Amino acid sequence: MHLYDVKDRTVVVVDILRATSCMVTAFAHGVECIHPFADLSACKAMKAKGFITSGERDGKKVDGFDRGNSPFEYMGEDVRDKKIAFTTTNGTQAIEKALGAKKIIIGSFLNLSSVIKYLLFGDNNVLIICAGWKGKVNLEDTLFAGAIVEKLRNHIEPDCDAPLAAQYLYNLAKDDMMGFLSNSSHVKRLQRLNIQKDIEFCLTPDQYSIVPVMKDGKLTIT
Amino acid sequence: MHLYDVKDRTVVVVDILRATSCMVTAFAHGVECIHPFADLSACKAMKAKGFITSGERDGKKVDGFDRGNSPFEYMGEDVRDKKIAFTTTNGTQAIEKALGAKKIIIGSFLNLSSVIKYLLFGDNNVLIICAGWKGKVNLEDTLFAGAIVEKLRNHIEPDCDAPLAAQYLYNLAKDDMMGFLSNSSHVKRLQRLNIQKDIEFCLTPDQYSIVPVMKDGKLTIT
Repeated sequence: MHLYDVKDRTVVVVDILRATSCMVTAFAHGVECIHPFADLSACKAMKAKGFITSGERDGKKVDGFDRGNSPFEYMGEDVRDKKIAFTTTNGTQAIEKALGAKKIIIGSFLNLSSVIKYLLFGDNNVLIICAGWKGKVNLEDTLFAGAIVEKLRNHIEPDCDAPLAAQYLYNLAKDDMMGFLSNSSHVKRLQRLNIQKDIEFCLTPDQYSIVPVMKDGKLTIT
Repeated sequence: MHLYDVKDRTVVVVDILRATSCMVTAFAHGVECIHPFADLSACKAMKAKGFITSGERDGKKVDGFDRGNSPFEYMGEDVRDKKIAFTTTNGTQAIEKALGAKKIIIGSFLNLSSVIKYLLFGDNNVLIICAGWKGKVNLEDTLFAGAIVEKLRNHIEPDCDAPLAAQYLYNLAKDDMMGFLSNSSHVKRLQRLNIQKDIEFCLTPDQYSIVPVMKDGKLTIT
């Protein structure tokens, strides 16, 4: 990430399991806005301002928070028109690192085609930030990046081999992403938390046709 | 790289096209030692001390240097028992970043099996540093890392998904690495320099049975 100047770029932030999948799900169910926080206590403090406090550390819901990091917690009528303060181990850290970008949008398999359309008809200079796990590579975010590269392959000129590697991996995995990921470090970590249903949902493409966009420190859909 | 503490690790530095392939070739042809330099002028200054000065910037031989970055320049009798000062765009930078590691060794397809044996019978904690291109990912170094992961798959516990991704890519590529790499950024860059023969040679496994090891600021084989 430190190798890239985001100033002139459209940045897609990706944390498939599960931050950006939760965010997309929440917006699809009528959430007004999401304020992402890298810092836990700053996020917690938003409760006093009427926000729903949401998130996890090391995959587990934070004590005292209203909600955790499962997309199924963001599907009820009780989130409609609400404001959410969100902090996670990886996803919201990645958003913070992207601050200063020309545009920041939120990507997940759940809104894959909408993200692709947004990029295809938007500015040319794109960076996909795979949140990974504590800064290290994970496969599921890489597969999402690979899906974008595959679908936009006739429209892009990568400036290193990472997009090509992601594309190869996506094509290898696309017919059975769950099986492909079963050996991955993060999926193993999450399986210990009994969230198989979350993982399956987060790997399902095109459930929602929205693109959350960051503006003035908060995410909205327009 | 900044995510890893190398202090307790055996670090394998990899720059397949072409720094570490050159180094392995040079040692296989009797070179006494190689002093790697990240800095160009520090490398140049070694000529006055009787060293052969070698290397490249942006893939091209440096003006005033004795040799460039083709393995075929390190196969003659005229390198036997010589000392080399070596600087390259990526490989020697990666070696400098690895300084402080418990052990630093040089890997390439040319000495693949020897590196694998060294790791199998050595200490457990291994980090493979893929030099890439100016800090960014390239496929050929990733494939080498994947080859090591594949061969040692029953002996390792990766701490992120990068080794797994590299392993998948290697298995996809192994029967035709040249074809697989034909779209990669670095191979395209090098093809413009007319060094197809170098690329083919650098992708050939097990030409030499040596492992260069860094000690007291220089590489030797023991």
